[in-house]
Amino acid sequence: MEFTVQQIAEVLGGTVEGDAAQRISSLAKIEEAQAGSLTFLSNAKYEPFLYETGASAIIVGNAQELRQPIVPALIRVENPYTAFSQLLEFYAQATRTGKRGVEQPSFIGETSKIGPGHYRGAFSYIGDDCQLGEDVLVFPHAYIGDRVTIGAGSVIHAGAKIYSDTVIGRFCVVKAGAVVGSDGFGFAPQPDGSYKAIPQIGNVVLEDYVSIGANATIDCATLGSTRIGRGSKIDNLVQLAHNVEIGQHTVIASQTGIAGSAKIGDHCVLAGQVGMAGHVTLANKTTVTAQSGVGKNVKKEGLILQGSTAFDFKQNQRAQIVFRRLPELEQRVILLEKAQNTTEKP
Amino acid sequence: MEFTVQQIAEVLGGTVEGDAAQRISSLAKIEEAQAGSLTFLSNAKYEPFLYETGASAIIVGNAQELRQPIVPALIRVENPYTAFSQLLEFYAQATRTGKRGVEQPSFIGETSKIGPGHYRGAFSYIGDDCQLGEDVLVFPHAYIGDRVTIGAGSVIHAGAKIYSDTVIGRFCVVKAGAVVGSDGFGFAPQPDGSYKAIPQIGNVVLEDYVSIGANATIDCATLGSTRIGRGSKIDNLVQLAHNVEIGQHTVIASQTGIAGSAKIGDHCVLAGQVGMAGHVTLANKTTVTAQSGVGKNVKKEGLILQGSTAFDFKQNQRAQIVFRRLPELEQRVILLEKAQNTTEKP
Amino acid sequence: MEFTVQQIAEVLGGTVEGDAAQRISSLAKIEEAQAGSLTFLSNAKYEPFLYETGASAIIVGNAQELRQPIVPALIRVENPYTAFSQLLEFYAQATRTGKRGVEQPSFIGETSKIGPGHYRGAFSYIGDDCQLGEDVLVFPHAYIGDRVTIGAGSVIHAGAKIYSDTVIGRFCVVKAGAVVGSDGFGFAPQPDGSYKAIPQIGNVVLEDYVSIGANATIDCATLGSTRIGRGSKIDNLVQLAHNVEIGQHTVIASQTGIAGSAKIGDHCVLAGQVGMAGHVTLANKTTVTAQSGVGKNVKKEGLILQGSTAFDFKQNQRAQIVFRRLPELEQRVILLEKAQNTTEKP
Repeated sequence: MEFTVQQIAEVLGGTVEGDAAQRISSLAKIEEAQAGSLTFLSNAKYEPFLYETGASAIIVGNAQELRQPIVPALIRVENPYTAFSQLLEFYAQATRTGKRGVEQPSFIGETSKIGPGHYRGAFSYIGDDCQLGEDVLVFPHAYIGDRVTIGAGSVIHAGAKIYSDTVIGRFCVVKAGAVVGSDGFGFAPQPDGSYKAIPQIGNVVLEDYVSIGANATIDCATLGSTRIGRGSKIDNLVQLAHNVEIGQHTVIASQTGIAGSAKIGDHCVLAGQVGMAGHVTLANKTTVTAQSGVGKNVKKEGLILQGSTAFDFKQNQRAQIVFRRLPELEQRVILLEKAQNTTEKP
Repeated sequence: MEFTVQQIAEVLGGTVEGDAAQRISSLAKIEEAQAGSLTFLSNAKYEPFLYETGASAIIVGNAQELRQPIVPALIRVENPYTAFSQLLEFYAQATRTGKRGVEQPSFIGETSKIGPGHYRGAFSYIGDDCQLGEDVLVFPHAYIGDRVTIGAGSVIHAGAKIYSDTVIGRFCVVKAGAVVGSDGFGFAPQPDGSYKAIPQIGNVVLEDYVSIGANATIDCATLGSTRIGRGSKIDNLVQLAHNVEIGQHTVIASQTGIAGSAKIGDHCVLAGQVGMAGHVTLANKTTVTAQSGVGKNVKKEGLILQGSTAFDFKQNQRAQIVFRRLPELEQRVILLEKAQNTTEKP
Repeated sequence: MEFTVQQIAEVLGGTVEGDAAQRISSLAKIEEAQAGSLTFLSNAKYEPFLYETGASAIIVGNAQELRQPIVPALIRVENPYTAFSQLLEFYAQATRTGKRGVEQPSFIGETSKIGPGHYRGAFSYIGDDCQLGEDVLVFPHAYIGDRVTIGAGSVIHAGAKIYSDTVIGRFCVVKAGAVVGSDGFGFAPQPDGSYKAIPQIGNVVLEDYVSIGANATIDCATLGSTRIGRGSKIDNLVQLAHNVEIGQHTVIASQTGIAGSAKIGDHCVLAGQVGMAGHVTLANKTTVTAQSGVGKNVKKEGLILQGSTAFDFKQNQRAQIVFRRLPELEQRVILLEKAQNTTEKP
């Protein structure tokens, strides 16, 4: 994709200073930009880069003054950050998710339906009795089982696996390699010490605007639904076990694991590598810091928790500091004990 | 799939009270059931739901008494829980793993053989010189390399990758996206500070009734075999490195990682996010709690271990409690020291 | 693959004692070897196995003396370990990565080019405007987006996903199921408490000789590049977030997670399940032990760090030891306090 500086300026409603015929093929940060790329200046802190950048063109504010001559072309607009963000979204859409049509070979069950404007990549698989809305994109190697519904505008990336009976809302994103709806880890111990798999016949429900990270795994419910609320964002390699329920607009960072039947409220933030025990409940607006373990219900809203058995963040920070001094602390107790013995003797 | 209440009652050897012609299309918990679904009542605690549930039919015990009129049809049987479990297994089998036949396009090397009753989904790949038993199910996008053997009744889910020379027993389950038999992480440091890959030519052996979770990774042995014993269950996103050996009927929960050449006994339970160092041995019947780290051999059977350098569970619990009070404890030592100084001066 | 002992001896430039016509079909450790396999003796510690091994042939040093009669054939060479390593590499290459040619069906965009000596497995997908060098192997179900470049000799394993605009150097390995270049986890909080995805238009750059583990996830940069330096090795299930930069010859073990924009130096070693916060910098030659968390910049080279908020390894070890005694330590403080009270009263 290449555009001239002039073409971009017209899209943004901006005015050009300098060589408007230059061709732009990429977007870049001002400190990293090279020939052929377009950048922007919004934060005054970065102004020195105006005169050093290798970019071919720079989006600047209408009021931006120049202290010295400048090589790149300028595109002047009201708000450079907003203008650049528009270009970013356009570029991302054009290069990553702008696919349409059907590549062959691809597979779709005869009883499944998909709306207009869709993409089905080569080697994508859609089973029977599925209902996919308009503008749904199914990338190569995506697997969609039977009786799955996917709302308009959702994107199923390469090699994602959506098991039978999953319900996905509108404008959801399931990233590459994610597994949504595989059997939960439920085994009944037998008298001889072996385990027997408990049938898992529930499903997974993703409400609108949910995002699932690459290679994340979301197990189906044993009965009923594993559910992720509207707008919640799940990062790469996260594990959500059977019957987990996540509220709305909650963010769960990479490699966190939530055990079976746990319930997380709305507007929570779980940082990376957090673990949460089964059947535990987290109140709305709870924050859990990285690598913490949550083993008990949290009923009060708005707490920040930390630690391997997570408790109050600041209390944990203070305890961690003393932890480092533990050997000295023990020495001091020993000295006190010796002194006491000395004192007592006479 | 739809059945009438009468049809289900006949399968279960039960008797119907109420509208036997109603159509049932799903199974549900009594507190979540809606029209068209069948549920059951086994635990007396849930009896109030008998009169509130939205289910179309309920499986109850022959002796179940009714305190008030009831809308759903009843199917009376000797043991409602057992009857419902039978239906669950039937339903899971019918909807999830009841596939048979070959979808096209799919790929199988000319020298590979697969028994009767199998399923090969579209875009599944089976290399050369493989031996797959009867009733083996290979879902779409599953990759099976060369010289792989898979026993009767095993299921390879969508997008699972089984590397060359892997040996899989009977009635195993490899869930979606799992990677079994990729090269171990072995690199020899070179004099210039770079690393050279050590060839990994061993394989992975899964004995009968083993289950591997979604997106789990099981590396092949450098030489010999990485081995998982009969009936052991491995959860999603678990990492088992080269030459790891797992005993029989051991359960390893999600996101746990076992480093190279570690050996875990029979009937062990490792909770989620546990880490285990290389070459370490765990005795039979060891339990390790979530997020713990095991760095030393455990020779005594039946211990419960906890902590970032795991030790006895109860001892760790007590230490964790004092850990929270560390800042106060340090203050108390300071006070004692001050008092001592005061005492000493005169 | 089968060779006679004589054929192998000729390749290694060795001399045979015993039955040179025996057929060899596998390589094995001396203590595990069975009929049909070849092993070696390098370390004198294993000498007793010379007389016990089930191998059909053994590679030994020219000077190796025999204390008793021996059943297997011997191949005498100057350096048994080197000779065996050569065979290992040959065997690994022949059985695992020696594929060439194109299996059908496979997909490649019309505008993409791939050099001679390549392999494209069935159901592999290569998008538009890609440039793949000679001897590049693309295994079944691998997904390669648009405008990807891959250097000569690199291997993309089964079901790996390489997103658009990724740049991969020469002799890289991307293992099964790895996701390279999916969108970073960047969301802008909105006034109503919801989140809006920030367009991610950067890419991932893997320099030469980089290895990416099975089911690992490497996010693309928001702008610019997520970069892994020459010769660095990334293990299974590792998460590298957007804009992470890894130096040269750095090793990162399984299940470690590195948050956005963190920078790791050259020749570092991160053990398994380590977490590293966003924007943090690690100096060259830093070692971080398993399950540790790194939250602050490390400027000094060569440190070994440990702990949930990682600090000096030895200091942490000492603190961990006292941690186990915390309940007793608290008791001792209580006794001191009681004694003091007693002392003060009179």
